[in-house]
Amino acid sequence: MRVITLLTDYGLRDSYVAEMKGAILRINPDVTLVDISHSVDSFDVREGAFHLARSVNYFPDGTIHVAVVDPGVGGKRSSLIFETSRGYLVGPDNGLLAPAAERLGVKRVYRITDRSLLLERVSDVFDGRDTFGPIAAHLSRGEQPRSFGPETNEYVRIPTYSPPMHVDGGLEASIIHVDGFGNLVTNVTYDELGELGVTSGSEITITIRAKRFRVPYVRSFSAVPVGELLALVAGGGYLEISVNQGNAHKLLEINRDEKMYIAA
Amino acid sequence: MRVITLLTDYGLRDSYVAEMKGAILRINPDVTLVDISHSVDSFDVREGAFHLARSVNYFPDGTIHVAVVDPGVGGKRSSLIFETSRGYLVGPDNGLLAPAAERLGVKRVYRITDRSLLLERVSDVFDGRDTFGPIAAHLSRGEQPRSFGPETNEYVRIPTYSPPMHVDGGLEASIIHVDGFGNLVTNVTYDELGELGVTSGSEITITIRAKRFRVPYVRSFSAVPVGELLALVAGGGYLEISVNQGNAHKLLEINRDEKMYIAA
Amino acid sequence: MRVITLLTDYGLRDSYVAEMKGAILRINPDVTLVDISHSVDSFDVREGAFHLARSVNYFPDGTIHVAVVDPGVGGKRSSLIFETSRGYLVGPDNGLLAPAAERLGVKRVYRITDRSLLLERVSDVFDGRDTFGPIAAHLSRGEQPRSFGPETNEYVRIPTYSPPMHVDGGLEASIIHVDGFGNLVTNVTYDELGELGVTSGSEITITIRAKRFRVPYVRSFSAVPVGELLALVAGGGYLEISVNQGNAHKLLEINRDEKMYIAA
Repeated sequence: MRVITLLTDYGLRDSYVAEMKGAILRINPDVTLVDISHSVDSFDVREGAFHLARSVNYFPDGTIHVAVVDPGVGGKRSSLIFETSRGYLVGPDNGLLAPAAERLGVKRVYRITDRSLLLERVSDVFDGRDTFGPIAAHLSRGEQPRSFGPETNEYVRIPTYSPPMHVDGGLEASIIHVDGFGNLVTNVTYDELGELGVTSGSEITITIRAKRFRVPYVRSFSAVPVGELLALVAGGGYLEISVNQGNAHKLLEINRDEKMYIAA
Repeated sequence: MRVITLLTDYGLRDSYVAEMKGAILRINPDVTLVDISHSVDSFDVREGAFHLARSVNYFPDGTIHVAVVDPGVGGKRSSLIFETSRGYLVGPDNGLLAPAAERLGVKRVYRITDRSLLLERVSDVFDGRDTFGPIAAHLSRGEQPRSFGPETNEYVRIPTYSPPMHVDGGLEASIIHVDGFGNLVTNVTYDELGELGVTSGSEITITIRAKRFRVPYVRSFSAVPVGELLALVAGGGYLEISVNQGNAHKLLEINRDEKMYIAA
Repeated sequence: MRVITLLTDYGLRDSYVAEMKGAILRINPDVTLVDISHSVDSFDVREGAFHLARSVNYFPDGTIHVAVVDPGVGGKRSSLIFETSRGYLVGPDNGLLAPAAERLGVKRVYRITDRSLLLERVSDVFDGRDTFGPIAAHLSRGEQPRSFGPETNEYVRIPTYSPPMHVDGGLEASIIHVDGFGNLVTNVTYDELGELGVTSGSEITITIRAKRFRVPYVRSFSAVPVGELLALVAGGGYLEISVNQGNAHKLLEINRDEKMYIAA
């Protein structure tokens, strides 16, 4: 059983995700479908790229990832198949797939131009169901990506997040994601923290909009009392600012893309 | 692997959908379960019927659709199995299944009266788990629908939406659905637009509550600048009023069932 | 195909549930994954325990249940595998699993101490992906629970809800759950109602914060007019206070854990 994952901004109320799954199962009924997320903010390619890049590594070799956050659907943007060391990615050429593909190791990239294996398109604005899902299903049956178009050397990269900047002995970091628990995910990696001389058990100073906090850098939420701030490197490999059994986003009222100064 | 789809108004917080899936898997572990939607508004049979009718065509032949939006559960309404050219539908006889069944091509209809193949009912008010799910599972193993009751010629149809009315050389249309992107789905088909003399690239006039808009009729959202209104025939085959990378529902403050006058 | 169910408070927006599923499928691609709920309130162990205990009985023998609502992740709480007559449960030792395990019939309990079959832990705070999911996947392939640690006789029980108290010929009950329809699930069983002399068709008196209501005790919502209060024993086996095609939670403004006096 090949795994096909789906990530979209279609939401879970409408039948859009189901139509995409039906279209896949008509071509290959023997796949395991896994939802990554369908609750990406409408048209938020960066958020979709974040979730996809974060999760692809955890899937089996040979998994095919279909992702559709696609403000340009029906327009001039083209579409891609990434062939990586560990599986394919299929979707619009708008920056959504690139970070995940690069994390898996890009081997070849194909531009989707050939619909001869696909049904006639019902709609110009539902590529998830009419193009990307079916292509993923065909790939899962062993079809070669070149059946859908020629190789290309170019694809769109969007500025997702840059590494933090070294300023005055500390780091000018930014919030790249606010998760469902209200954890503030920064662009600071474990290694970058180490370079600051921060080690588990020490404190760090974070400055947000002229407010300064001393926060313990710990290995688990429960290392601080309930309701207190902490910093840790969580499951995605980035430094997160959190509240033990609470919501850092609500407490600090800080949003994605805001800056934060971090020092030892 | 047979596909069984599920559509309910149970929501995703409670364990109700999972209990229904467990009950299915106890009878046939070799099915692929696909959620159509569980976020239908509570008791909104028309919304459920809309999602179901829209999506059933995209599933493989032989798919079994179980749908439960069921304000009359436990009461006098009866239950049905539709046998269609492309699979079965199972659920309450309240209009929920009929539009989807008719779209697939009704061959025979059975009224559920015989529980001899089912476990004793735990609850009178959880037919999804105790009746419809298990019947779908039995059908997926090759059981015949007549094992659950006799054929019938009658089933409930509810007024879902009528075709638009021709008025003064235009169409009096209505909004039949507002989707998660805020797109306003009307009851106007591609052919009906054509009869108005509207072709891709031309403009249409829509009048909502005495406000009049000139809107380009296009083939993709990006044919107009970001934030502007457009009209297109989207993935469901109906004319939709949308905003490029925006939300027409929020912009126009128009809701389901409101009327709209459309002219070339 | 073995069934693995998942229950978490991870939400459906982030990729956390998908990473957990990927980690399972890498170890055993031949499982059927079923979500029980991922919308448990953050850190609400009691709510998670409620959904899990309610639903486990409906799954096939041999199903493995993984549950993670885990305010103490990364801290000192330990982790368990319950071996029951009908399958395993895997998760934190914080009271989340115990009611479900006891309902299935506990045979043996193992404390998770041995990670030798697991990959090195990426994060200290994502046991769902790095520990519990992978253990469930190994168990689904026939691995023995003792491979992950020794048997134990102790596990954490949390006060979920006690039976109602007999007071003045009636019952002092409490609301143990408010479901997505606004139904108020009490801790009163069918048998306890019977002891009060309440039979189907009779009325009961419920008193909430000094307000008194006479409510028909019925077998289906539609036994009362639309919009009116009723009491019935629903799919979970407990007395629920509901409104026919309405929302009792909104009507009565009563919340979980509030008390209610019930008399014949």
